[in-house]
Amino acid sequence: MNLNYIEHIGIAVKDLDTAINYYEDVLGLKCYSIEEVADQKVKTAFFKIGQTKIELLESTSADGPIGKFIEKKGEGIHHIAFAVNNIEEQLQGAASKGIQLIDEKPRKGAEGLSIAFLHPKSTLGVLTELCENKADKSITQ
Amino acid sequence: MNLNYIEHIGIAVKDLDTAINYYEDVLGLKCYSIEEVADQKVKTAFFKIGQTKIELLESTSADGPIGKFIEKKGEGIHHIAFAVNNIEEQLQGAASKGIQLIDEKPRKGAEGLSIAFLHPKSTLGVLTELCENKADKSITQ
Repeated sequence: MNLNYIEHIGIAVKDLDTAINYYEDVLGLKCYSIEEVADQKVKTAFFKIGQTKIELLESTSADGPIGKFIEKKGEGIHHIAFAVNNIEEQLQGAASKGIQLIDEKPRKGAEGLSIAFLHPKSTLGVLTELCENKADKSITQ
Repeated sequence: MNLNYIEHIGIAVKDLDTAINYYEDVLGLKCYSIEEVADQKVKTAFFKIGQTKIELLESTSADGPIGKFIEKKGEGIHHIAFAVNNIEEQLQGAASKGIQLIDEKPRKGAEGLSIAFLHPKSTLGVLTELCENKADKSITQ
């Protein structure tokens, strides 16, 4: 695989407003976008720090992936996302190395990115997302 | 507080050699340093991706913080570290906002950085590290 940089870190939170207040008031970051991703049953808030974004994730349903994560592990870091080019090729590369794919083909995620997840069972416990901005293929940072 | 960028992401692993092999062979990153931090009871391996490092952490003792973390939560993302200037001032700023400090004063961490941790109980479940490279105050990236 060929990873460009850490596109974002996903953090599961119980209450988005409380969390936005912490990230803004205590950490001094600025929320630039709030977006609901219906098929993931989450409401997200984005912050930029250096090259990377922080994506806060509040579950909109107890049976969604973030609701289940918080029930099992509590609030905290949920996943790490790497920016890639040619996401389909990267997924093939991961599969060829025996990595279990959650998404065999990319789907649309927050901010209009093409995204796909690798299963933490084959990534040493780290839920790993690949994402590509297909709208701007020149971005490699 | 004033955070510059994400200095590294700390990931707890059971076996450093297995993990280095995964990060190199599957993810395509390159381990540039292996270091033991005796007072944290860990052996670490570092990778650079874009602006950020990935720090793999293997416990050298079952009663160390990483050993306990893996016993409780399994392998996975352990902490997030922000690069700052004037770490003492940032710690004061965090305390003034009611954040519980694990380290009231900076101590020496891996790679010779001055580091201090904030308690996840007051950071919405995210074990948060601040770090400053006192050897090079010009670095802000």
